[in-house]
Amino acid sequence: MADFHLTTREYHPQNTIIDVGGAKIGDGSLAIIAGPCAIESKDQIFRIASAVKASGATMLRGGAFKPRTSPYTFQGLEDEGIKYLVEAGREVGLPTVSEITDESEIDLFKDVDIIQVGAKNMQNFGLLHALGKVDKPILLKRGFGCTYEEVLSSAEHIMASGNERVILCERGIRTFETYTRFTFDVSSIPSLKTLTHLPVIADPSHPAGRYELIEPLSLAAVAAGADGLIIEVHDRPDEALCDANQALKPDKFESIVRKAMSVKAAL
Amino acid sequence: MADFHLTTREYHPQNTIIDVGGAKIGDGSLAIIAGPCAIESKDQIFRIASAVKASGATMLRGGAFKPRTSPYTFQGLEDEGIKYLVEAGREVGLPTVSEITDESEIDLFKDVDIIQVGAKNMQNFGLLHALGKVDKPILLKRGFGCTYEEVLSSAEHIMASGNERVILCERGIRTFETYTRFTFDVSSIPSLKTLTHLPVIADPSHPAGRYELIEPLSLAAVAAGADGLIIEVHDRPDEALCDANQALKPDKFESIVRKAMSVKAAL
Amino acid sequence: MADFHLTTREYHPQNTIIDVGGAKIGDGSLAIIAGPCAIESKDQIFRIASAVKASGATMLRGGAFKPRTSPYTFQGLEDEGIKYLVEAGREVGLPTVSEITDESEIDLFKDVDIIQVGAKNMQNFGLLHALGKVDKPILLKRGFGCTYEEVLSSAEHIMASGNERVILCERGIRTFETYTRFTFDVSSIPSLKTLTHLPVIADPSHPAGRYELIEPLSLAAVAAGADGLIIEVHDRPDEALCDANQALKPDKFESIVRKAMSVKAAL
Amino acid sequence: MADFHLTTREYHPQNTIIDVGGAKIGDGSLAIIAGPCAIESKDQIFRIASAVKASGATMLRGGAFKPRTSPYTFQGLEDEGIKYLVEAGREVGLPTVSEITDESEIDLFKDVDIIQVGAKNMQNFGLLHALGKVDKPILLKRGFGCTYEEVLSSAEHIMASGNERVILCERGIRTFETYTRFTFDVSSIPSLKTLTHLPVIADPSHPAGRYELIEPLSLAAVAAGADGLIIEVHDRPDEALCDANQALKPDKFESIVRKAMSVKAAL
Repeated sequence: MADFHLTTREYHPQNTIIDVGGAKIGDGSLAIIAGPCAIESKDQIFRIASAVKASGATMLRGGAFKPRTSPYTFQGLEDEGIKYLVEAGREVGLPTVSEITDESEIDLFKDVDIIQVGAKNMQNFGLLHALGKVDKPILLKRGFGCTYEEVLSSAEHIMASGNERVILCERGIRTFETYTRFTFDVSSIPSLKTLTHLPVIADPSHPAGRYELIEPLSLAAVAAGADGLIIEVHDRPDEALCDANQALKPDKFESIVRKAMSVKAAL
Repeated sequence: MADFHLTTREYHPQNTIIDVGGAKIGDGSLAIIAGPCAIESKDQIFRIASAVKASGATMLRGGAFKPRTSPYTFQGLEDEGIKYLVEAGREVGLPTVSEITDESEIDLFKDVDIIQVGAKNMQNFGLLHALGKVDKPILLKRGFGCTYEEVLSSAEHIMASGNERVILCERGIRTFETYTRFTFDVSSIPSLKTLTHLPVIADPSHPAGRYELIEPLSLAAVAAGADGLIIEVHDRPDEALCDANQALKPDKFESIVRKAMSVKAAL
Repeated sequence: MADFHLTTREYHPQNTIIDVGGAKIGDGSLAIIAGPCAIESKDQIFRIASAVKASGATMLRGGAFKPRTSPYTFQGLEDEGIKYLVEAGREVGLPTVSEITDESEIDLFKDVDIIQVGAKNMQNFGLLHALGKVDKPILLKRGFGCTYEEVLSSAEHIMASGNERVILCERGIRTFETYTRFTFDVSSIPSLKTLTHLPVIADPSHPAGRYELIEPLSLAAVAAGADGLIIEVHDRPDEALCDANQALKPDKFESIVRKAMSVKAAL
Repeated sequence: MADFHLTTREYHPQNTIIDVGGAKIGDGSLAIIAGPCAIESKDQIFRIASAVKASGATMLRGGAFKPRTSPYTFQGLEDEGIKYLVEAGREVGLPTVSEITDESEIDLFKDVDIIQVGAKNMQNFGLLHALGKVDKPILLKRGFGCTYEEVLSSAEHIMASGNERVILCERGIRTFETYTRFTFDVSSIPSLKTLTHLPVIADPSHPAGRYELIEPLSLAAVAAGADGLIIEVHDRPDEALCDANQALKPDKFESIVRKAMSVKAAL
């Protein structure tokens, strides 16, 4: 493939390892990032943070800026949400991950450990260039209409702007199948890991769109070589303000973590 | 469809008509927007502006900020490019259209008549909200992985932010077919025109990816009810800095305009 | 493209013209094939045959063997249906087209003028080889998951078996868009006509899935260079035993024929 | 989902178990079906049969009737191929699986243990109905443009015709991604197993299209709950007459079997 430099194994033969406060991605262990789709209140994120920590999560996720398709649905608690997330992470001792949707929000993420770029912004190059100047790892989700080459090109944009700590994430693509929300393209995991030294994790929640599919997709991702999982967990799914159908309860999440670790160990 | 208000025909029963300095889109005529993929020099945009004006174009397009997939290819002349475009438009008497890629560029577009949002930014909601505050028409291209509902949702984002002058544009979607660059979804034109009062135009250049397909796709779009066409024209395709394969020469463009007008008249 | 011989313009520089009892496809005129999705009774096919003849159809279609996805829905009147179709065609003076689903049915089609291979059987090579021995034109519909190359390869299978009278038909492909039943890939028409000498027609009914989209898709196909249209018409759509949503009434069909002829004349 | 009866868990609450000469599919073990894409000679299939048996295969596959896209490539040894396959299976003590492409071939399959319907024939209903009268298990591959509902509908066609021993097989779908040959839709495995009592296996070879991806896709399928794998193995890939790129050598196959068993045991 032409036009790839910083993402290639020629440039960086060893696997890149991301280390945030001791929690690692890409070192051969299995990173487990969990938390609610959206931070809804201080109480909610503290409750869920404790639950996912107890169940084996290694990082806490939660959305404060939600790039919702419709302008008339819950768009997130914004700076207040970020504050609660950081406090909850500190309380339970987990590094935090949250999604940015606009360059103007960067300062608000100063205490967040990993900044996520969502699928809808994977080719928002202004944002990618700005994140190239930030001294934090970037979790880059695959756009649902984008190829492996385009995922790597977007990583190149960030890296060429100065930030080489990029984590790639498969989260499903658009196809004709409607039973699932998106089609989880498990082949992207070994393919990307062949093409690049960057870590590759998987989000089973969005492609599943149904909570009962999250376990098999998680295990499939681990078996295919994923460096980690990012899973939506909510202790009260019926009250969730977004993506309620794909929210897992903590007990089910715990069972998935246990099985995922078994599969990882079996490889 | 839920969550649609400002884009619906219930909200605005008549077709929205966009008027920029006398050139209209959505009034029953056929708008013809033409020009190079990228503005490459003052001389180049002046030459092409004259050529497309002579061939029947009603507006001049040209890219100054190019959201290129790879960071290592030509990214556009930026503010200098915008300046040349505006001068060329004035010289030949055509309103201008150019693509914005980041909110921070808005001030540079003050003399551009219509601001285009490209396919890769269709769900860059920060940009959409910022353009909702601008007093200019917005040309919103369909994301290549996005549904009709999502196109309309993005238009709702702009409109709910204060700007009701939105033009939708079909430019092809990602499918398994590789003979064409994208699959031109001609059904989107009559479908969107049923669902919304906003004008709908077509870009035949990007889905074609081959100059010889631009004529049949243009005529198909007009026959399906498109309010206009946006076509890439270059007088020296061999020297074009981007999308050379899909660049039409002015004489071929003139022939398409003539046939498109015949089809329009036949309906 | 490799492995193409009989379908190429090198093999046959002129356009192939199919002539069935004076009705022609591929000679520069616009063939109009119309009739019900399924033949439901003698009375129904005679009524509709008269109506489509009066509205400008040049051939009569009707399904007797229906390859329905579910085994529990109406599968067609089979040999009885074929008999009614042929009689109706003779009564009104229109050649007939009907779909075959299995090699064992070939003898039953002896009085049918054109044998159709449906999308689901486009790569049923046993059937294609058998039709290569038949002395009748074959109308080959594009499989909804198949590329242009595969359409041409299937035509090669028929031609290499001895029958060079093949008509290709675009009828929509599977994509992520759910507003339409399939995505009508209008680009296939000019692309196939560049690659092969065989006639290319369009079926706007199946991709539309909604009767109101059939007119714009028909006109788009004609503008893109289609040699003909095959349209589902039913005089009592509410009683139709299959595909009721996409069945056009005769008066609407007549209006489409008139406009299609205008677009054709404008080119 | 409407129109499903015999495939549902309401009709048959327990998992269906297929037993061919002691080798089982669907009983909780992992079936391993392996062999060459095409049977090329008696010597070739005997060599590969021994190799896959030694590496842990539970059944032997080999194609004698190849539904090749192009009519100008190797179409298989036909009846001679079937004879060699059956002899090789007996020699090494493995039940056999081979693909049928036409109803007229059924008698030739009398000594084959499982008859496979390939992706291109998944909706060849005449063939499915004929196989409904056969007293052998049918391995039904998902069409590459077909949904889960359509896979189940095709199984209903076979079952409603009298044969309830159907095995479903995921083998990848058509999407815009071109790095892999098809997109392996791993979600289909747990989804189908929820919807039906029939066993579900996976073919990692065709979606991969590259031998190095077959291991991760195999392990992903097993982790997602597949009842078995069907893998293309060739001891001399450079000489293979079809699908050489995706052919695994026996030593690599052995390693996959070992890891697949470890993953299965870990669940």
